[in-house]
Amino acid sequence: MHHRDVLKPDGRALTLYGVRPVQVTSEIPSPSVDPVDARPVMRWHPLRGEWVMYAAHRLGRTFLPPPEYNPLAPTRDPAHPTELPRGEYDIAVFDNRFPSLTLTAPDPEPGPAGTRAGVGKCEVVMFSQDAHGRLADLSETQLALLLDVWADRTTRLAGTGQIRSVLAFENRGVEVGVTLHHPHGQIYAFDHVPPVQARMLTTAQAHHAAHGRPWLADFVQAEQAAGTRVIRDEGLALSVVPPFARFPYETWMVPARPAALLSDLSAEETRAFGRVLQDALRRLDGLFGVPMPYLLTVHQAPVGAGSHPEFPLHIEIYPYLRAPGRLKFLAGTEQGAGEFANDKFPEAAAQELRAVSVAPGERNIEPGN
Amino acid sequence: MHHRDVLKPDGRALTLYGVRPVQVTSEIPSPSVDPVDARPVMRWHPLRGEWVMYAAHRLGRTFLPPPEYNPLAPTRDPAHPTELPRGEYDIAVFDNRFPSLTLTAPDPEPGPAGTRAGVGKCEVVMFSQDAHGRLADLSETQLALLLDVWADRTTRLAGTGQIRSVLAFENRGVEVGVTLHHPHGQIYAFDHVPPVQARMLTTAQAHHAAHGRPWLADFVQAEQAAGTRVIRDEGLALSVVPPFARFPYETWMVPARPAALLSDLSAEETRAFGRVLQDALRRLDGLFGVPMPYLLTVHQAPVGAGSHPEFPLHIEIYPYLRAPGRLKFLAGTEQGAGEFANDKFPEAAAQELRAVSVAPGERNIEPGN
Repeated sequence: MHHRDVLKPDGRALTLYGVRPVQVTSEIPSPSVDPVDARPVMRWHPLRGEWVMYAAHRLGRTFLPPPEYNPLAPTRDPAHPTELPRGEYDIAVFDNRFPSLTLTAPDPEPGPAGTRAGVGKCEVVMFSQDAHGRLADLSETQLALLLDVWADRTTRLAGTGQIRSVLAFENRGVEVGVTLHHPHGQIYAFDHVPPVQARMLTTAQAHHAAHGRPWLADFVQAEQAAGTRVIRDEGLALSVVPPFARFPYETWMVPARPAALLSDLSAEETRAFGRVLQDALRRLDGLFGVPMPYLLTVHQAPVGAGSHPEFPLHIEIYPYLRAPGRLKFLAGTEQGAGEFANDKFPEAAAQELRAVSVAPGERNIEPGN
Repeated sequence: MHHRDVLKPDGRALTLYGVRPVQVTSEIPSPSVDPVDARPVMRWHPLRGEWVMYAAHRLGRTFLPPPEYNPLAPTRDPAHPTELPRGEYDIAVFDNRFPSLTLTAPDPEPGPAGTRAGVGKCEVVMFSQDAHGRLADLSETQLALLLDVWADRTTRLAGTGQIRSVLAFENRGVEVGVTLHHPHGQIYAFDHVPPVQARMLTTAQAHHAAHGRPWLADFVQAEQAAGTRVIRDEGLALSVVPPFARFPYETWMVPARPAALLSDLSAEETRAFGRVLQDALRRLDGLFGVPMPYLLTVHQAPVGAGSHPEFPLHIEIYPYLRAPGRLKFLAGTEQGAGEFANDKFPEAAAQELRAVSVAPGERNIEPGN
């Protein structure tokens, strides 16, 4: 992995990553030279026991710009600067111009109990210079690079000393609120461990204490033994519809050898992880013959205060179509009670996903039993 | 409150409620005479620590039927039966034909660890015989009746001895997945306390233990003192944008005197609660001049195993528009981390909601300070 760190005219950080050495052939641009004036605030929700982020400046953020203005494309005309320069690179990461959290968030004006500065970091991850591509179109090498980039960002954010948890994700499709079509994701870095990661750590630690084995090891063993929910098994990594899937066609990518962080994976494990991810994304697009709107989240252990080897590194994809033309909505029970109703049994979902043809002549995986 | 309990031809229960005595003037219908063959299943999500409900039969449920077939309208032609008879009644509650949970769920076939029967109950609540009305169009008396109906269902469900928590809710708008336009809501009754209610009980109990006062009493006192987030104060009940709102324009209705269940409210408190609810719904529709898509949830204490007076009874509304034409999506941080990013400060949201004209000549509430 090659990279180059530069600073944008408005003071934001930009890192260009490449499979080959990075070359920049134009000025480093920014859509605006005005420094980002973000004053994000957090408030404590006393009944749900979670922080809420407030960032009033975000209401003006870019919303489905016309194709002639794509902020994630390299700048062609210096009079109309985008976020990225021209040059040789594959992936770019830069500070979000409309952050919900910043490392320099000032103390807010006195407010209701539980008000504090919104300390953290929000980054944008451009996946490819191809504005019309998909994450699934990336080659095995490019996907391995993306996994390495996510790992590098996590290490860097942990290194600030201010970050305790890093969430990389991709929202894909206008159905889930995507405001820019150029393939990209985001990173939210928190100065605390948010509820989902805290819960996963607690439950995985309890499993380890009770059984003397990592939760992920037992999960992989059980899924390989059952076989009915495995989508693809690449030996070092596999994809499954978990037996407790909350979304129809929910897909998890897990390493076969338990790990807590992407940076724990070997180069070979990373490539296998990328292959099952690519395979899963292509199957989801092939399922109904339309691009599947989804949320992809990368779950890693807390950082910055000791290691948490019990945490199960994995990637979750929540597809939003439950049938052709039918979106899965998060409604009363999901939001009001925190419990999901799913119309599709995981075993049936996995069977359908295995039957999707992902590429001409490519062999589809058969059920394990 | 008057009511009449009847049985549908397919065996499902139906209760008709009225401000005046209930009269039924046709046969009790059902869209199908076949008994509901629901075999709902629950599985345990070991990392999130929550149940997931599976109900494969739900995929075939009614989806935006044509206006000439409205299953919530009284049956006009016995050859085309709906869910409801003709007659004098205001509100109807019946067993959902496509339940995610049933009291008679059979033990499932052996499955992965953490598989069990989906025990609970799913009911449909028809709010009004006016197919084209809104919840906000109900009169003060009708809204008080609805609150009494929700209370009655909660009492009845607790009385089964199988239910530990009851969630009444309304999904409003196709944007949030509504499949029938006739104004209605749903009830999910669980045989356990789901994560959100469990968390609220724990945090409220901790508050009570630490301060010797109900959380709701301190919340109401603080909001009345600040005034900036109050939308309407009717003395016995008030509406506020809570200081920790997760959605832009999120609105809570709370009783001024702490209560744990709707059935704890006096008749006068119930009427005041209904007035602030009606007011809040009308302001949300007036905010952008379009019907506001929203999720409304009624939060009550666990039932069936001791009383929980510390639990703060309240209604939450999550509006889904953050600006005209712009939906709020639950994306990476909300779903992947369990933390919400909100573009709108609660104080600004409350100010805008107070400025909405709810009815000709009606006085809008001014900030309290």
